[in-house]
Amino acid sequence: MVKQPKTLEVGIAQINPTVGDFNLNQHKIIDYISQAEKSKFDLVIFPELSICGYPVWDLANKKSFVETNLQVLKNICQATKSYQITSIVGFIDFGKKKNGKNKNALAVIRNGKIILVQHKTLLPTYDVFLEEIFFEPASAHHTFVLNGIKIGTSICEDIWEDAYPVKPVKIMKRKGIQVLINISASPYHRKAPIARDDIVRKRAKENKIWLIYANQVGGQDDLVFDGRSFVADPRGKVVARAKPFREELFHVSIPLYERKLSEVLLGSLNEIQDIYEALLLGIRDYVEKNRFQKVVIGLSGGIDSALVATLAVDALGCQRVIGVTMPGVYSSKGSYEDSEILAKNLGIEFRKYPITPLYQAFLEQVAERKEVKNKTALPMTLANENLQARMRALELMYVSNDEGCLLLSTGNKSELAMGYCTIYGDMCGGLAVLGDVYKTDVYRIAQYRNQISKVIPKTIIEKAPSAELRPNQKDQDSLPPYEELDQILELYIEKNMSEKEIIHSLSQKGISKEVILDTIRKIEHNEYKRRQTPPLIRVTEKAWFGRRMPITNRFGKS
Amino acid sequence: MVKQPKTLEVGIAQINPTVGDFNLNQHKIIDYISQAEKSKFDLVIFPELSICGYPVWDLANKKSFVETNLQVLKNICQATKSYQITSIVGFIDFGKKKNGKNKNALAVIRNGKIILVQHKTLLPTYDVFLEEIFFEPASAHHTFVLNGIKIGTSICEDIWEDAYPVKPVKIMKRKGIQVLINISASPYHRKAPIARDDIVRKRAKENKIWLIYANQVGGQDDLVFDGRSFVADPRGKVVARAKPFREELFHVSIPLYERKLSEVLLGSLNEIQDIYEALLLGIRDYVEKNRFQKVVIGLSGGIDSALVATLAVDALGCQRVIGVTMPGVYSSKGSYEDSEILAKNLGIEFRKYPITPLYQAFLEQVAERKEVKNKTALPMTLANENLQARMRALELMYVSNDEGCLLLSTGNKSELAMGYCTIYGDMCGGLAVLGDVYKTDVYRIAQYRNQISKVIPKTIIEKAPSAELRPNQKDQDSLPPYEELDQILELYIEKNMSEKEIIHSLSQKGISKEVILDTIRKIEHNEYKRRQTPPLIRVTEKAWFGRRMPITNRFGKS
Repeated sequence: MVKQPKTLEVGIAQINPTVGDFNLNQHKIIDYISQAEKSKFDLVIFPELSICGYPVWDLANKKSFVETNLQVLKNICQATKSYQITSIVGFIDFGKKKNGKNKNALAVIRNGKIILVQHKTLLPTYDVFLEEIFFEPASAHHTFVLNGIKIGTSICEDIWEDAYPVKPVKIMKRKGIQVLINISASPYHRKAPIARDDIVRKRAKENKIWLIYANQVGGQDDLVFDGRSFVADPRGKVVARAKPFREELFHVSIPLYERKLSEVLLGSLNEIQDIYEALLLGIRDYVEKNRFQKVVIGLSGGIDSALVATLAVDALGCQRVIGVTMPGVYSSKGSYEDSEILAKNLGIEFRKYPITPLYQAFLEQVAERKEVKNKTALPMTLANENLQARMRALELMYVSNDEGCLLLSTGNKSELAMGYCTIYGDMCGGLAVLGDVYKTDVYRIAQYRNQISKVIPKTIIEKAPSAELRPNQKDQDSLPPYEELDQILELYIEKNMSEKEIIHSLSQKGISKEVILDTIRKIEHNEYKRRQTPPLIRVTEKAWFGRRMPITNRFGKS
Repeated sequence: MVKQPKTLEVGIAQINPTVGDFNLNQHKIIDYISQAEKSKFDLVIFPELSICGYPVWDLANKKSFVETNLQVLKNICQATKSYQITSIVGFIDFGKKKNGKNKNALAVIRNGKIILVQHKTLLPTYDVFLEEIFFEPASAHHTFVLNGIKIGTSICEDIWEDAYPVKPVKIMKRKGIQVLINISASPYHRKAPIARDDIVRKRAKENKIWLIYANQVGGQDDLVFDGRSFVADPRGKVVARAKPFREELFHVSIPLYERKLSEVLLGSLNEIQDIYEALLLGIRDYVEKNRFQKVVIGLSGGIDSALVATLAVDALGCQRVIGVTMPGVYSSKGSYEDSEILAKNLGIEFRKYPITPLYQAFLEQVAERKEVKNKTALPMTLANENLQARMRALELMYVSNDEGCLLLSTGNKSELAMGYCTIYGDMCGGLAVLGDVYKTDVYRIAQYRNQISKVIPKTIIEKAPSAELRPNQKDQDSLPPYEELDQILELYIEKNMSEKEIIHSLSQKGISKEVILDTIRKIEHNEYKRRQTPPLIRVTEKAWFGRRMPITNRFGKS
């Protein structure tokens, strides 16, 4: 009689695939399987849709895309057929109907053969997920046996069964599984790590099973996947945790018949550090996966552009970042000097492209058309403010086109909420780095980053925010104090609280009803601007991307 | 014994509500009910979500929005409590759970009381629909009796039951209904009228019931609703048709026990006229519902801007349209002259804002920075082409901001597919009028419009398309002939055909494999530009808005 092994040696291959880069993904998967085989693991687990990357949206129903992904699955089988290890990879399977929807699937591979295919049962369709549009659900639930242990498989949402009539985990528990594997591509937002911990521990405990949660890592347009794979034991305690925001082959030795492992607590998350890491990964992967050599950033002397430049340097290195200061008529001397110091601290290329000559020339034309004496006789208008922002965009996009680099836009979530930004001006760019970061968090992240090394000048952090588009302009002339504004925004956008509830909730904090109602009115009025943003890296529970509002909407308007 | 009436006198109130304008919608609904009451109709039917407008997206889960909509429902009951007529209106009902999803609903009102509430059962979640995100489905199906006749009610997708496991119409047929009412908000695309006709006739025939289909009319951001309400008899023949693209109270007298009505065929649709009407309504409603007084359009001398200006005049009147010609270094004399003639023909305000001085000044700066002798020593680059387009946007957005008018963008679907357009340049605007119209259809619509009255100069229609951004540039230098290109685009985007299938399908038409593959590559590469478009009026089966693709996507790239 063969003696049963006492442990299951599991490798979680927490990888960063690239959507559609089948060559890269195939090599990465085969490499990690080979490493795991060499390490004599019993099992190696890859994240959801690891062969093609996640999310793929409508690519899931592009025939040649799915065919290529199936070929890669075959290649992986072929390359590992002499291996002892069992591997689990995510892929897209063709659906039942010829031109119908396809399936989000996983394959369990052993000795070069697919021994089990499990489709995803629960298809999340809310917020940033639209899987019902692209996939059809599983109709059966399978298990397999490894070293005498019955193992169930599931994909991401399948373990979040509480909200659904079908309960995949319960079904598999009834089939007698001891271990459940969940392959995920669960995007980061600041509350996600706790939510995942809660659900995995709950599922493990209520079913008295081991639960192995393998998550993807990497940036993909608006989304960042934070990895953080982990394993919960049948008591519902987490006994092993992989790193956040890093690719790795994470090893867990699961003691199936004996000793208990000690608990590894999630601990108190440093939310600001997390957001910082998420933004780094979001920038790096957007730039690398889209093959940009360099990025360009307009440096205004304010905190937003200073933080974006810092993040870009941390993500890409100083050689790949160009900072451009574009002083205008209302720019302060301090703004230029602060930008210069920042650029020096960061070690980036620093350019100065003043917009004043073109701005003056434009206004002369306007004066002529309006038949006023000269440009100084023109009133200062919103059109003139926007014009300056757009002239800066003209300069930055010229650099982008001329030198083939990506323009990073610097606006934050608070500004985008209020429409305190210029469309085709400072909103321009291929990636909106801070588009889901509240202004008060921009400050916190800057402070956090300066603790690592002092790069952002104190003067930038301490000055009153200003767009410097008219004389003596301050953000706070047009907006509530950011400490107040961001509280309103969080309750309204993330918590979906009603006007009444927000007024009630913030009345003790001294925020007036008028400010709250005016803020909400402005949020809704500026939907048209947000419709034209580039992808913005999601870090909160509700980013603009997951909030769908009509532009034409007269609710609350006279 | 009361004698049974031999007919059911039905009014279909094919109305154009405005999303969130509860005051307007309430008045409109009460007015139409009053008219129908005066006409002694038995029943008056309003479209889906007529109280709040459709689609509302995430507004469906905004508490104050739903509360206001319920108050309007009460007001309608109150205002009609002395009436004899039965009314059916669409509204949002609160869901079961306090902070859960709400319900897409209809109320049957008689003598000021709600005698029945029916929720929507089938929630379309594909293409431009995302209702599973916003609503929870019905769990029961109700009928009511009017003049001794059993009537069933349903909402839009409920009659498209073939693709779903639950069959609302079959359920109600089993309950013995003779008449089924369907209230819809079914958006226009060029194949929609036929698809609706087919399904309604099929449902009526297979269940041997009368089917009354009441559709919304009007424009809402990307979508246009074309009305075209109609009635099918139990033989599956359409016996009455309301107008397309017009609000009306449409009367149908349904003979329940006797004579047959003669069939009203859909006839061969004039697809080009339909698209023209859809674009008019789309422009008019976006402008009116968002309270713009005027629109501004850049007139290039090309067919796209000529058509947009013509559509704007037809939609809004010539007093509300400003045309701006912005000649640059490479603009031909013909372009200016043609634009001037067009503006004269249309009777619109015509302005000339040359971009050459600013463009030259910008290039002088570039020359200085690059330390070349002068601007003539600079090579002609893509950056310079885009710069011209962006300087025009600067002018147009200045007009937009300064005079409070809406900028209409003029790019067509073929250009957007290929990325043959400048982001933050000609792509700027609040509404992309032709963003879902293929270039070959732009010509067809122009020809159609010129048959009504000759406004677009022949020279504009006949000249070879050119962006005029470098010397002697023609679209056809960079793109396949539009007749070929549009065939590829239609098969790829609308039919979702694979590369192989397209090559096979178009090989007899002499379109080469290389052209097809290069076209597809360009479509996918330019997703980042399309992510930043304004709403574009949908007229085809698959508009960009309903096609969700990752930007970061290396499939097919080296």
